[in-house]
Amino acid sequence: MKKLLFILLPVFILSCQEPVGKIGATSDVGPDPEDIRMVEDIFQDCLAHGETYEMLRHLCLNIGPRLSGSAQAAQALDWTADMMTQMGFDSVYRQDVMVPNWKRGAAEKCNIAGEKEALAVLAIGGSVATPAGGITAEVVEVQSLDEVDDLGEKLKGKIVFYNRAFDQRNISTGGGYGGAVDQRVHGASRAAKYGAAAIVIRSVSSAFDDVPHTGTLSYAEEVPRIPAAALGVLSADKLSQKLKENAALQLFLSMSCQWQEDAPSHNVIGELKGSEYPDQVILVGGHMDSWDVGHGAHDDGSGCMQSIHVLQTFKRLGIQPRHTIRAVMFINEENGTAGGKKYAELAKANDKESHLVAIETDAGGFVPRGFGLSATPEQLEKWRSWLPLFNPNIISYINNGGGGVDIRPLNEETGTPVAGLITDTQRMFDLHHSANDTFDKVNRRELELGTASLTALIYLVDKYGM
Amino acid sequence: MKKLLFILLPVFILSCQEPVGKIGATSDVGPDPEDIRMVEDIFQDCLAHGETYEMLRHLCLNIGPRLSGSAQAAQALDWTADMMTQMGFDSVYRQDVMVPNWKRGAAEKCNIAGEKEALAVLAIGGSVATPAGGITAEVVEVQSLDEVDDLGEKLKGKIVFYNRAFDQRNISTGGGYGGAVDQRVHGASRAAKYGAAAIVIRSVSSAFDDVPHTGTLSYAEEVPRIPAAALGVLSADKLSQKLKENAALQLFLSMSCQWQEDAPSHNVIGELKGSEYPDQVILVGGHMDSWDVGHGAHDDGSGCMQSIHVLQTFKRLGIQPRHTIRAVMFINEENGTAGGKKYAELAKANDKESHLVAIETDAGGFVPRGFGLSATPEQLEKWRSWLPLFNPNIISYINNGGGGVDIRPLNEETGTPVAGLITDTQRMFDLHHSANDTFDKVNRRELELGTASLTALIYLVDKYGM
Repeated sequence: MKKLLFILLPVFILSCQEPVGKIGATSDVGPDPEDIRMVEDIFQDCLAHGETYEMLRHLCLNIGPRLSGSAQAAQALDWTADMMTQMGFDSVYRQDVMVPNWKRGAAEKCNIAGEKEALAVLAIGGSVATPAGGITAEVVEVQSLDEVDDLGEKLKGKIVFYNRAFDQRNISTGGGYGGAVDQRVHGASRAAKYGAAAIVIRSVSSAFDDVPHTGTLSYAEEVPRIPAAALGVLSADKLSQKLKENAALQLFLSMSCQWQEDAPSHNVIGELKGSEYPDQVILVGGHMDSWDVGHGAHDDGSGCMQSIHVLQTFKRLGIQPRHTIRAVMFINEENGTAGGKKYAELAKANDKESHLVAIETDAGGFVPRGFGLSATPEQLEKWRSWLPLFNPNIISYINNGGGGVDIRPLNEETGTPVAGLITDTQRMFDLHHSANDTFDKVNRRELELGTASLTALIYLVDKYGM
Repeated sequence: MKKLLFILLPVFILSCQEPVGKIGATSDVGPDPEDIRMVEDIFQDCLAHGETYEMLRHLCLNIGPRLSGSAQAAQALDWTADMMTQMGFDSVYRQDVMVPNWKRGAAEKCNIAGEKEALAVLAIGGSVATPAGGITAEVVEVQSLDEVDDLGEKLKGKIVFYNRAFDQRNISTGGGYGGAVDQRVHGASRAAKYGAAAIVIRSVSSAFDDVPHTGTLSYAEEVPRIPAAALGVLSADKLSQKLKENAALQLFLSMSCQWQEDAPSHNVIGELKGSEYPDQVILVGGHMDSWDVGHGAHDDGSGCMQSIHVLQTFKRLGIQPRHTIRAVMFINEENGTAGGKKYAELAKANDKESHLVAIETDAGGFVPRGFGLSATPEQLEKWRSWLPLFNPNIISYINNGGGGVDIRPLNEETGTPVAGLITDTQRMFDLHHSANDTFDKVNRRELELGTASLTALIYLVDKYGM
């Protein structure tokens, strides 16, 4: 039987992840046994019976990507509203808003002139098209916006190739992303200032593959709008290598993307009405729009399905909230924040209700790690006092500072404290804004643990206030 | 430019994962700046230049699964030894040991009699074969070993179908695994006691798919050895449903697996010699054998490649260890622990050296979460005092209790403290011992963070002792 010990030992090792001393507990008495039981119930129920994952499967596989203004975005919003109605939420309604309406058009083309092999390419979201026949021009490789300023007029008529890589050294992949994304956002206008014909960038990606990553850009007012595209990382490596061999090579780029008239759309909202404070709202939300490639599975189908399922978990467990719990599917996070601004505008104008806190889940459906909260030191301390209720493998800290793109306008307009679910993001920027952000990249348990973490937090906010 | 704030906000949210107050720091002075710098260097270097992932790619795609006694296991051990030699380790050598030698044989077959559709099935490791023409018998579904005792002689001539599911409610997936695996390990002999002809089990898996999971069983001495197979979870659901419709249905099962003579094999060891204490060893290791399906990517190709790369990171960063750092590729963890026992036997007989600590990495190449250590309270406290040096998103606790199957004999024979790397295991039991444990399921950054965590820990043990 000794052999059995060896067989079972890994199980015990994996099981004995005891909760170690926790941070921020403000009381020596320890947590309320009712809270211990309820948080445990929430986690067990989500892991065993949660439907976040199956809802996300439908969104990803039956509807797909959902760029603002697209038929799929409209379909997803309708489906979400229907689902919340069927779930028996106390009210389900919409907030109308006009959204920007950019279309990718035909598949982009990019290759080194004279070579048959195509480079992997996607237009950067919001880019203008190339002329109908495409652009063919010499290429200047740069590592930064500053280098563009240094080169100045030498860039006239050229395609500027921003090739600074995602810095893999950061443990936080957000740091790697933040350190490279200026090329995508500002690269076009910086190069246009000196007469460049177009830009291509190395995709802002932590993966070493050839799947290009899109995302939004910002054109400056004072310079011409030139086409901007993202190359797959391996295509960028190839182009860089070829330029070393032949600095005079020419690149061909063809894109037919276009801006259309703003389109009518809406945020979709579902609520459980508070029994004691119906006019005090705890908001949990994500964004229903996504980029137009992949499934928008992690970004942010996951967050939307989690938000709905927080309310559904309250119902399944028979928890009657004291405050109103509101799930918001914001529209247009990716390229304009029209939905977030509309929500804030309406909230500011509504003197019949107020928000305790708004919590966004837009960090991907990965295993949770903590929450970030932008609030007073006392509120932060209160949240930290709840940490002993959480398994430290799931929620181990409350950061000072948090929120999300969609709820930032609400914070700015009304002063509502804002928070965000923090997940483990090691895999995030392999997938983000690319054709690889698909349903199969989401793990059921990781996603449901996010729902459970949000539900447990909101249960505590509802019980103890902010 | 306000739009830009919205665009960049998620980056800042993801970046601002500040290290919060840490557990177990024993000094008010704070960590030594040299240690802060070195740990940071180790993590940055592994993330940017680590080769653990590319080595694992070779192991998985060019060699593949490596059951003890197989040609692939021998090939993997040779390749590993060659690689460590090429890396310029101070010594590379082998410890010969005979290993059990079980072969799966032809692909297993299982279907409900009269139905064409096959059920997804794998022989449980170590099972005997069915008779040449297979077994066809009625099926009795049970949920536990106890239920088998209750049914007793009613099971005579039947196929017993253990269908108790992995309990999804546990946050620790090790708990779910540990709660179901008795069916796989003891199910055959318990049923054989009452004259059952064979058993099939619901795979011990956290996934809802139809990929069967193998693993080892233990036959009791006093009862006949009967064939034992694992069904995919969906196949188990199907069989259970069909039994509800027709309790008298018959199941066909055919397996040709067999035990062959024990085979010669070895542990493979690589070392960096200590400059001050060459006879005091810090061991880091994993197991080179795997089950014979999939790639053995997480279990435990990842741990083996990490162990080698710990030494390689010392070399790349020019860290001269004071103690000898030893990477051990153990053989035969999955079905016998012959390698672990041989290592312990030789260590016990060798009075020229001693071990400071042995650390196993066999929890999959997932993002690290902490370490478990079985040692004295003082040693535990010392390790906890190093926690402030680690990013809390990666290493946030040191558990009391840890180790691994391969190093347990060393602990038992010599009293050496043993430890294990703890990873986030939400995805582990979707893949474990199945055809899905393949290279593409491993994330480069998560794997390299494991190497970095082990390297940093060993740097600290080497500097400060145990």
